[in-house]
Amino acid sequence: MHKKQVGAQTLLFENVYIKAGYSLCGLKEDDGSLKGQFDFVMQDDKFGEDTFEKGERKMFEIAIEGVLKKAQFKHADLQTVIGGDLLNQNVSFNFALRNTMQSVLGLYSACATFAESLLLGSVLLSGGFRNNCLCVAGSHFSTAERQYRYPLELGVLRSPVSQWTTTGVGSTVLSSETQNISIIAATIGKVIDYGIIDANNMGGAMAPSAVDTLLQHFKDTGTRPTDYDLIATGDLGKLGKNIVMELMAQSGYMLGGNYVDCGDMLFEYEQEVFQGGSGAGCSAIVFNSSILNGLYNGKYKKVLLAGTGALLSPLTTFQGESIPSITHCVAISTN
Amino acid sequence: MHKKQVGAQTLLFENVYIKAGYSLCGLKEDDGSLKGQFDFVMQDDKFGEDTFEKGERKMFEIAIEGVLKKAQFKHADLQTVIGGDLLNQNVSFNFALRNTMQSVLGLYSACATFAESLLLGSVLLSGGFRNNCLCVAGSHFSTAERQYRYPLELGVLRSPVSQWTTTGVGSTVLSSETQNISIIAATIGKVIDYGIIDANNMGGAMAPSAVDTLLQHFKDTGTRPTDYDLIATGDLGKLGKNIVMELMAQSGYMLGGNYVDCGDMLFEYEQEVFQGGSGAGCSAIVFNSSILNGLYNGKYKKVLLAGTGALLSPLTTFQGESIPSITHCVAISTN
Repeated sequence: MHKKQVGAQTLLFENVYIKAGYSLCGLKEDDGSLKGQFDFVMQDDKFGEDTFEKGERKMFEIAIEGVLKKAQFKHADLQTVIGGDLLNQNVSFNFALRNTMQSVLGLYSACATFAESLLLGSVLLSGGFRNNCLCVAGSHFSTAERQYRYPLELGVLRSPVSQWTTTGVGSTVLSSETQNISIIAATIGKVIDYGIIDANNMGGAMAPSAVDTLLQHFKDTGTRPTDYDLIATGDLGKLGKNIVMELMAQSGYMLGGNYVDCGDMLFEYEQEVFQGGSGAGCSAIVFNSSILNGLYNGKYKKVLLAGTGALLSPLTTFQGESIPSITHCVAISTN
Repeated sequence: MHKKQVGAQTLLFENVYIKAGYSLCGLKEDDGSLKGQFDFVMQDDKFGEDTFEKGERKMFEIAIEGVLKKAQFKHADLQTVIGGDLLNQNVSFNFALRNTMQSVLGLYSACATFAESLLLGSVLLSGGFRNNCLCVAGSHFSTAERQYRYPLELGVLRSPVSQWTTTGVGSTVLSSETQNISIIAATIGKVIDYGIIDANNMGGAMAPSAVDTLLQHFKDTGTRPTDYDLIATGDLGKLGKNIVMELMAQSGYMLGGNYVDCGDMLFEYEQEVFQGGSGAGCSAIVFNSSILNGLYNGKYKKVLLAGTGALLSPLTTFQGESIPSITHCVAISTN
């Protein structure tokens, strides 16, 4: 039997393959650096529904149908759906799955939810408990903005350290049947809080957590940053990315040109999103478009995806609390 | 290698043992049918903090420390914490784990979260990915009431079909080292919605989901209700429990005197909680007191715990949506 754990926080997998990935986003996301790489671009932020929330739910429905189609799966072939979203009580995810007859595991680790879903999906498959599963996470700018910050109608000026919640849903079908791309390991993160209290500065709040999990992953697995063709943090944005590079260098792990941040990658400077993208959909759509394409076409052989989540709520912000964060990372390799 | 899955939705485990359970609750919970069975009873609903939310967080901290002590674990012995709560963005759970240096997996399936944590904890252990983990879930009447319904200060009359959110946190340490009690199987639930729109009537909304998962579990495992000494649904309350009994009987599975509901069990008629207890803490504290005691003292040999969760949010209620629900069940056996 192969080894299933290494170091303090890292799990090792075998026979976990990526069967298909699917990304759905809004017009603004498709107008950035990754233009043309997404499977589906919504022409209208409400997706033809009467509220943004119902639009977000429909995004989940389409992303689930879309990845099943790409995986050539019928609904009856799929064993379990695992994932979540940012809305209170995970309603976009759960409502999209109403009466679909799928068994469902709901997760919440903010913008690290997609990485958590790949991690736990890999545990289910590698352990032999499921033969396949669908991992999915997403977010919507307009629903998140009014839930976490201000109603859009108020027209509040955005802070220069702020990020732009991604409107997008990314979905991945994992299978125990051999494919070209495997999930080989994952590191479960800790809840880290360095005392940042500015709810606009998510990148700064999440950076120490990303560093903690990346260092742990390298230590547990005995790898170095140069062992990966791509290291992608979830959605720290430009500011958070720079903090990560500095803190990693201080710990003796220099991150070079193979280090990107999904939030920083997604948008371009001219789009006025300040530090870049954020939201549970950010790493989910970047992974299921650009990163997966790079794995398929041979640009990358080994990728480390580190989903980063800020675990705040408006209530904790009102009560003057700082922002704890968590980062789960997943190592992906071509065979 | 033993079989890891059976039927459509059921996982089979080996080498997953319950090392210790711990229950913490409020005065009202300790004044009901299970008086004297809890490990810790708070004398003050704010637990000495300045808000109910901070009190709820402290409940999680104490329940985590308490179960580690009972399991004779040091913090460094524990590999992973898995669970969640009902507050927006799982903040009681996540904030309680800030800077504890534990690796953490956050879940959300409303009041089914405790059962989901036992399910995924068992997957981690049975698959060999962890040697131990701590499963925890909880809720607080005063934080849930103001989040989901009305501020307490408004003094709104309660509906006769309503339930009372449990103030309590239950925690369980699972270990792969042999103990007397094992988790042997679990069934992952579907998101079921029969169209109930009254956010006060959770029992009615959740009952069809409980029936769906129980029937699936019996079908997948080839067992009958009489094979269990105790079948406990999470928190359907009296009304929901009666609906479950009727629907199960219609499907040819008569539930007898071995069927209880944790919400119905927890409180007594004189406590004016109408249909009984609810909340993620309900099944968590009933399991970690009365049910676990019954397993330890030989009253029960085989128990089926079916955590039931109503997947609504105030926003979906305002938008006129019905209430989807999910039930995950876990089979526990003495050796």
